[in-house]
Amino acid sequence: MRHYRATAEAHPNIAFIKYWGNRDHALRIPSNGSISMNLAGLVTRTTVVFRPDLPADRLILAGQPRTGQALARVVRVLQRVRQWSALAWYAEVRSDNNFPTGAGIASSAAAFAALATAAAAAAGLSLSTQALSRLARLGSGSASRSVPPGFVEWLAGKSDAASYAVSIAPPDHWALADCVTIVTQGHKAVGSSQGHRLAESSPFQAERLATAPQRLQLCREAILQRDFAALAQVVEDDCHLMHAVMQTSSPRLLYWEPATLAVMHAVRRWREEEGLPVAYTIDAGPNVHVLCPADHAPAVRQRLEALRGVQQVLVALPGGGARVVEA
Amino acid sequence: MRHYRATAEAHPNIAFIKYWGNRDHALRIPSNGSISMNLAGLVTRTTVVFRPDLPADRLILAGQPRTGQALARVVRVLQRVRQWSALAWYAEVRSDNNFPTGAGIASSAAAFAALATAAAAAAGLSLSTQALSRLARLGSGSASRSVPPGFVEWLAGKSDAASYAVSIAPPDHWALADCVTIVTQGHKAVGSSQGHRLAESSPFQAERLATAPQRLQLCREAILQRDFAALAQVVEDDCHLMHAVMQTSSPRLLYWEPATLAVMHAVRRWREEEGLPVAYTIDAGPNVHVLCPADHAPAVRQRLEALRGVQQVLVALPGGGARVVEA
Repeated sequence: MRHYRATAEAHPNIAFIKYWGNRDHALRIPSNGSISMNLAGLVTRTTVVFRPDLPADRLILAGQPRTGQALARVVRVLQRVRQWSALAWYAEVRSDNNFPTGAGIASSAAAFAALATAAAAAAGLSLSTQALSRLARLGSGSASRSVPPGFVEWLAGKSDAASYAVSIAPPDHWALADCVTIVTQGHKAVGSSQGHRLAESSPFQAERLATAPQRLQLCREAILQRDFAALAQVVEDDCHLMHAVMQTSSPRLLYWEPATLAVMHAVRRWREEEGLPVAYTIDAGPNVHVLCPADHAPAVRQRLEALRGVQQVLVALPGGGARVVEA
Repeated sequence: MRHYRATAEAHPNIAFIKYWGNRDHALRIPSNGSISMNLAGLVTRTTVVFRPDLPADRLILAGQPRTGQALARVVRVLQRVRQWSALAWYAEVRSDNNFPTGAGIASSAAAFAALATAAAAAAGLSLSTQALSRLARLGSGSASRSVPPGFVEWLAGKSDAASYAVSIAPPDHWALADCVTIVTQGHKAVGSSQGHRLAESSPFQAERLATAPQRLQLCREAILQRDFAALAQVVEDDCHLMHAVMQTSSPRLLYWEPATLAVMHAVRRWREEEGLPVAYTIDAGPNVHVLCPADHAPAVRQRLEALRGVQQVLVALPGGGARVVEA
């Protein structure tokens, strides 16, 4: 008898061009395309077991059973896998991260990329990266980007079939470091799923979307040409455009904390006054992702750790895609 | 022989609906109308003397002779007065503030309102409030709002003649307090005159301008009806729209400091979690203006002074217009 069990791993990713707002909330089809880098070293490991004796799907995160919204999102992905595989059994999902959740490192991206990959393998499906990316997207939009390896673009698409991520360049294309600068470990007040629904309430969202294709192009080229200065500019521009939309939505989303701003000012100063190749970007949370060429990462990390309000700095290089590690 | 000397006083003002961007930079005709409150207690006192023995206009700020840009802006106003009065002499201008300059309290607004008023009186001109407001505008846009008393609207206009401020309500209409929360005494890196030129480089400025008339209307009504909750909402919304434009211009203007953000979060918390009637707004600088009904000001001031990074809190009630105090 074949096994209905598999374990997969995936990395979170940091968006260089941000995803904010959906064309279709239920299917998580985004209003604009986005570009990101997977973060090596930060890992979600997820085991899925389909079993004939379960009365319902079950989720255990970091050893704790979870219900409600968290479980509902997992069920969404498992349902699609059951549809595709004709498997009728419920599943038990166990997932663990080696990094703090809910505070600016997109843990849900890694979680749903690992879930999609493990669930498909456990059900005996042999899916393309494209299909796995679509599957992961159902649980968390940015999870679509944690499926392919390295530097990744999520093609927005206008339908479920057309909305998936592809690799632009493999992890070893460019030794870029993300110094994940943690200023608070707390969970954010408004999660991304909720936040995406507020994007359209900002008078600025339409213009952000209208100008996104140019930024996607600039970012893609900067990555392909390993042009750090060009990357720095488009990444910071895009970050501020998203936070401007957040800060002008109703209700307002002001994710920055005092230490967030201290890091932003320091990074700008280091670049403009000392010529250091550094740039920042910030997701829907207070922590700051400070990008730099990998050979500068030790010095940048040291500088960041010396700033008031910085609790911890994790350095991540470009990571691989989601993968089955046990089946 | 008549005297060619006069002294005038004026208050700075805090904008509830912000001025950011010009239709005509030379004439300082703004891209949108704005609404403000004059700040009693904070005073600029300016003496103008036209004298036959001066080889050029002369400016003395806080006892220090000033040249360059600062003098050039003063000369602009004096030239207009000479045109209108047919007086040919140069003038000596002495000006002093009883509050710190250049850090978020619009000192140039009070300065040019007092200058226009003193210069016109010294030259023997008897100008209407409207004409004085236009005159002050040539030196600093927001100075047009420090000329009329109390709660003031600057009608943007499309020409020099049509761009001036009027009083919406006198100072005693509403006992509103501005707790001016100073987090840094330093001069700002990019002054407003320069900043206004960057407004159009933000992809969001056009939309901010398109929606400004609605906010002007909401703000006007909130003032006339003494509706603090309505004022709080439109003032914070408008503040964030302006800062979103600033933070997405090229180059980026990020005026906030860590303590700025700490005050913003605290004010939101006090209002949303404790029901305190407070709201914040921020000009082109790091300091925060915390508005509240005057009877709450002592308690709000005490809370603000307890926040990390707050150096000083000045409480100002609605102030009068610019006036001649000696002629």
